[in-house]
Amino acid sequence: MKQIVKDHAHAAVEPTAAQVAEWLGGELKDGAGAPGRLSGLATLAEAREDEISFVASDKAVQEAPASRAGLLIVSPHHADALAGRARVVVAEVWAAVARLMERLYPPPAPPPGIHPTAIVGRDVKLGHDVSVGPYCVLGDGCELGDGAVLGPHCILDAACRVGRASRLVARVTLVGRVEIGARVLIHPGAVIGADGFKFELVAGAPLKIPQVGRVVIEDDVEIGANTTIDRAFLYETRVGRGAKIDNLVQIAHNVHVGPGCILAAQVGVAGSARLGAGCLMGGQVGVRDNITVGDGAMIGAQAGLNADVPPGQALQGSPAMPMKQFWRVSAALARLPEYARRLRALEMKDEEESKK
Amino acid sequence: MKQIVKDHAHAAVEPTAAQVAEWLGGELKDGAGAPGRLSGLATLAEAREDEISFVASDKAVQEAPASRAGLLIVSPHHADALAGRARVVVAEVWAAVARLMERLYPPPAPPPGIHPTAIVGRDVKLGHDVSVGPYCVLGDGCELGDGAVLGPHCILDAACRVGRASRLVARVTLVGRVEIGARVLIHPGAVIGADGFKFELVAGAPLKIPQVGRVVIEDDVEIGANTTIDRAFLYETRVGRGAKIDNLVQIAHNVHVGPGCILAAQVGVAGSARLGAGCLMGGQVGVRDNITVGDGAMIGAQAGLNADVPPGQALQGSPAMPMKQFWRVSAALARLPEYARRLRALEMKDEEESKK
Amino acid sequence: MKQIVKDHAHAAVEPTAAQVAEWLGGELKDGAGAPGRLSGLATLAEAREDEISFVASDKAVQEAPASRAGLLIVSPHHADALAGRARVVVAEVWAAVARLMERLYPPPAPPPGIHPTAIVGRDVKLGHDVSVGPYCVLGDGCELGDGAVLGPHCILDAACRVGRASRLVARVTLVGRVEIGARVLIHPGAVIGADGFKFELVAGAPLKIPQVGRVVIEDDVEIGANTTIDRAFLYETRVGRGAKIDNLVQIAHNVHVGPGCILAAQVGVAGSARLGAGCLMGGQVGVRDNITVGDGAMIGAQAGLNADVPPGQALQGSPAMPMKQFWRVSAALARLPEYARRLRALEMKDEEESKK
Repeated sequence: MKQIVKDHAHAAVEPTAAQVAEWLGGELKDGAGAPGRLSGLATLAEAREDEISFVASDKAVQEAPASRAGLLIVSPHHADALAGRARVVVAEVWAAVARLMERLYPPPAPPPGIHPTAIVGRDVKLGHDVSVGPYCVLGDGCELGDGAVLGPHCILDAACRVGRASRLVARVTLVGRVEIGARVLIHPGAVIGADGFKFELVAGAPLKIPQVGRVVIEDDVEIGANTTIDRAFLYETRVGRGAKIDNLVQIAHNVHVGPGCILAAQVGVAGSARLGAGCLMGGQVGVRDNITVGDGAMIGAQAGLNADVPPGQALQGSPAMPMKQFWRVSAALARLPEYARRLRALEMKDEEESKK
Repeated sequence: MKQIVKDHAHAAVEPTAAQVAEWLGGELKDGAGAPGRLSGLATLAEAREDEISFVASDKAVQEAPASRAGLLIVSPHHADALAGRARVVVAEVWAAVARLMERLYPPPAPPPGIHPTAIVGRDVKLGHDVSVGPYCVLGDGCELGDGAVLGPHCILDAACRVGRASRLVARVTLVGRVEIGARVLIHPGAVIGADGFKFELVAGAPLKIPQVGRVVIEDDVEIGANTTIDRAFLYETRVGRGAKIDNLVQIAHNVHVGPGCILAAQVGVAGSARLGAGCLMGGQVGVRDNITVGDGAMIGAQAGLNADVPPGQALQGSPAMPMKQFWRVSAALARLPEYARRLRALEMKDEEESKK
Repeated sequence: MKQIVKDHAHAAVEPTAAQVAEWLGGELKDGAGAPGRLSGLATLAEAREDEISFVASDKAVQEAPASRAGLLIVSPHHADALAGRARVVVAEVWAAVARLMERLYPPPAPPPGIHPTAIVGRDVKLGHDVSVGPYCVLGDGCELGDGAVLGPHCILDAACRVGRASRLVARVTLVGRVEIGARVLIHPGAVIGADGFKFELVAGAPLKIPQVGRVVIEDDVEIGANTTIDRAFLYETRVGRGAKIDNLVQIAHNVHVGPGCILAAQVGVAGSARLGAGCLMGGQVGVRDNITVGDGAMIGAQAGLNADVPPGQALQGSPAMPMKQFWRVSAALARLPEYARRLRALEMKDEEESKK
């Protein structure tokens, strides 16, 4: 492999420390120590002298003195611990990092207009400033809101809607009736609206039940690469406002994902399950059909939920149990063969005493 | 998000209750209570006064009185319990629901013919009434049976065959030699025929073994979105007649999936495993390579099979055990820390007595 | 389904036994028993009299006498046990099989040049003998090395690089900055470079952190169908030389997969985890974020790693434990309800004796 010359992303601008402080609405301290121009953002460990880094945790405060970074973004809580270092003090470090990255690394503007190879059906309504990439296929009656972006190779079945400022990065497929809200981001390979997997055994053989419901994706949702969200049998499958869904996740027919849920990669949610608001699920969690998971539940990676979960519960394991219990059980489980031996020893002692 | 005006699927026809009974070959009872026209099908909970609903279980009978539905589809077994309600009595409720849905919500007819942007290789054989969508790519020597439908962006490698009345919804990829039977339905993003994952350690490094076998998908199979079915090392990978495979499932090289199997989402079946007829697998089940799962086995979600399974067994857990045992073990497992304390208490008592 | 006439792959050439020996640099023994021409390669069980088979294990030696194969490929270790059979003796059976398959079943040559429907951006650098298939989309500034092959429907974002003799089979999507080394093989539906899944809770709501790093895929890597490899938050996600990744695998942002790792289907590796060289992971393994897995670790199917793993360890279970312990624990676990009963019996005996 050829030597990669430029490892880091190339910043669009090289601000001064004072400019960074102004962008972030933060206070520059010990700014004299900063280089004239800052060339980008990096982690504490990887930053060069001309780069900005950030301190977002107590652990990071310990690492910061060894960092070569020329400017640090810190919270008021950590500002004094790093006295002497050029730093910008901001109320919310992660919010500042996100804002700074948008300045330093603005995503390329999508090409304007409809690519000549895109196939656009009849009665399609296009908002202002939409971008439709090469080889997209839009069925009859689709609607794209203002500023909506379809990257290359997206397919929209008839009558699908994509809201204002939403972006389908590339090769996203919407089948059946799909309604996408505003500012939604969908990564390549996602398939939204395929038939729910619903078969009933009739005379011993699986009979396919038609799936005629829709999928509704509310505003500000993000959906990962190659994730699948099936349409409903009747009525709808719904992903609530601001929910974030990682790659290779399966959302079955008629599921409701509550607003603000965060589902890590390879989670699977079976038919008609209901997730409340703000649930967090680690990778590879499985949720059985028709159960309800309460608001704010936190489910550890690889857990299997097979019954309703009360709001706010932290669960782990398959079948799932309260997280603290899971760790106690896991510790005991590792010693189970030893317990079995000790049980046998007691029994033998008891048998011997019985013989006496 | 804009207000969604029309929540339910729009029925193509609005039948009378008598028409519904005629379509389904059922008997209309208390038909006087039905509205003049019925506008669609809905669940008991969601149905409006002008909609049809159905009673497919004992639980549904309890819910039916509270439903606003204007007409119910019921089995002879439940017909009397709902006396007074306008209802159609049919032998098989789910079969009737499926038939009714085909009348009310007929899927749109695929566009006829070969889209001008489709690229069709040499010596391709096309049956009558095939539909090939935009941007499809068909390699040399492919065959499509009568009425076969390829939605947009499907890719068929040279010499692939798709049988009569089969439908590749969109963006399905067939690579290597793939033979698809009749009336097969394949959802977007599925990849059939990619190289099996076969490496042998030679001199400590993984050596790729070429994969030159084929994939055979028999009649009436359904394959979910973004599912992957690999081609064989030699000979074939085969999915038996009528098997139903959900989204994001992995079927490895040389696997045989028996006829009528139902595999839920995210199941993974490793190389050369054999699944018998009519096996049911819940979501995220894993099957190790080279094992045999007997006919009619029922495997609970997230189970891990690492040894042959006799026919008809119901298993759960990883490693899997009989389902009843699994639930007993799971109940005991939750109490394991308590058992450990009780064991310790007995031991201490015993030690004290020994000292006496 | 129509009768499939030709079950086996069709060999491009039909060699004599002596030619096979010459191709493989092996010694032909008892060659008089071989047929004049050999028509292909098959497993011991499936081979016909005019086909070649191979003996790659002690178990295979037991099966070989019953095989109808006209010629066997065997190791020196097994050569005498099969005296009387026409056989070619080679140092490494699997290496010989792979070489023979390349002769018998050479993959079709990719069509030369750039398909007229491919859309190629500005300043794209194309090596000699590249092949770019129909409907590919290459962004500005991409680079393809000599002999690189892009099958149909591949999408490369601006400035992506694909090295010498690498092959993207079909419908592979590279987004963000992606650098692919030489001789890399990527199967259909893989998405490389999508946004990492990184959200920080700010004022109780998930805030998206921009992902501006790159993905580096080193030489000789293989990546399975519908697998997803996310780009880094900052700096890079990296898959080391010769690593082999199966279908539907999730590699999160900033992960490093060491050289020569073999990851089976549906494995998930969370953000910033580090896998050492030559790790082996069975299907559906989960690796938590920010942990380190040592060189040569062997992780059984469905295991969950939630802490650092020392080099060379063999682990299984979720949470993972040493593999031998896992099997002891699993055996004991199946008997846990019995242990609980025996514990209760001891306690009752003890209570009775206390009463005396």
